[in-house]
Amino acid sequence: MQLYSYFRSSASFRVRVALALKGLAYDYVPVHLVKNEQTQPDFAALSPGRLVPVLKDDGALLSQSLAIIEYLDETHPQPPLLPADPLGRARVRALAMDVACEIHPLNNLRVLRYLLHDLGVSEDDKNRWYRHWCETGLETVERQLASQPETGRFCHGDKPTLADITLVPQIFNAQRLNCRLDHVPTVMRVFDECMRLEAFSGAQPSACPDAT
Amino acid sequence: MQLYSYFRSSASFRVRVALALKGLAYDYVPVHLVKNEQTQPDFAALSPGRLVPVLKDDGALLSQSLAIIEYLDETHPQPPLLPADPLGRARVRALAMDVACEIHPLNNLRVLRYLLHDLGVSEDDKNRWYRHWCETGLETVERQLASQPETGRFCHGDKPTLADITLVPQIFNAQRLNCRLDHVPTVMRVFDECMRLEAFSGAQPSACPDAT
Repeated sequence: MQLYSYFRSSASFRVRVALALKGLAYDYVPVHLVKNEQTQPDFAALSPGRLVPVLKDDGALLSQSLAIIEYLDETHPQPPLLPADPLGRARVRALAMDVACEIHPLNNLRVLRYLLHDLGVSEDDKNRWYRHWCETGLETVERQLASQPETGRFCHGDKPTLADITLVPQIFNAQRLNCRLDHVPTVMRVFDECMRLEAFSGAQPSACPDAT
Repeated sequence: MQLYSYFRSSASFRVRVALALKGLAYDYVPVHLVKNEQTQPDFAALSPGRLVPVLKDDGALLSQSLAIIEYLDETHPQPPLLPADPLGRARVRALAMDVACEIHPLNNLRVLRYLLHDLGVSEDDKNRWYRHWCETGLETVERQLASQPETGRFCHGDKPTLADITLVPQIFNAQRLNCRLDHVPTVMRVFDECMRLEAFSGAQPSACPDAT
């Protein structure tokens, strides 16, 4: 397998963690987003959305990090990244989507660039925007983790799932952009728990071959 | 089952289509987003993200439209809303996420309000923003539908899947906001095909009990 990744891309980070939890080896192919390599013909031919990550598996090209992780979970079931029961699966997927659909899309590099360069928003207002969606989105996750009995050592029980895989990279982004995190203590407790695992710590941006 | 929905919410529209394709009856509970009913204590207690849709099934509360639809597909397998093979499932999920993660989050009511009221963006610029993400995002879907052999009468083969369920409500939004659609002919061919089915046409905004 080959993973087209950028060290700071949190969607790529998710897939790196999933591959590590599954114990799957892969070639790391860097795509430098700040240099716009994702729009160059070579990569654009592999990625309909001009986005990382892309996973190449036996010739097949897969996009969208959560779809890639579900694919890995279906093709390499051990250890499972989703619970066995439908309600548990729905809870884990919803927690993942609270990050992947409500926070991350608003704080993507191309979105921040559009705010600055196309709408003429100031650097300060762009950062306020970033923090707003990140802080309110994490509050949504906190409300669930803090109040629901399914929460364990990790987001759902005592094994890492898709929910943790999606949450941890978002916390890295939040810390880099100086977001408030003192209002989400359960989220941070789970984050610390995840970071004790080599699958998470070894997949973090600074551990990537293209880290600068 | 009870579905908390708003007629114009495209995420609610997705779940209405899925319930109709499965032939499942439900009570429609309207939540008026423009009147901010989603932030009132009664509804906020049901929805950690203060978002529609929420599905109540046998006392359990489910959020995030794609997670709800996967749950319905797992608990009521006929007709299936995802293909049987892992690569096909990954393709359908990625197509759905090209809409649900790359277009819709940027064009949400609360996001448009933040642009206008918190960042002071003009009405014209807000509409330009809307059209930009909608038109470029649909281009990503078009590239796949137009070039991949898996495309059939619908996004994936000859039966509607999660990809069609996510695409159709986005086209309603695009039309309402006067987005260009002549650059995505395959998307529009699939849209027309879906709208011939009662499960789609009967779930559209104008057919909802809270439509105005």
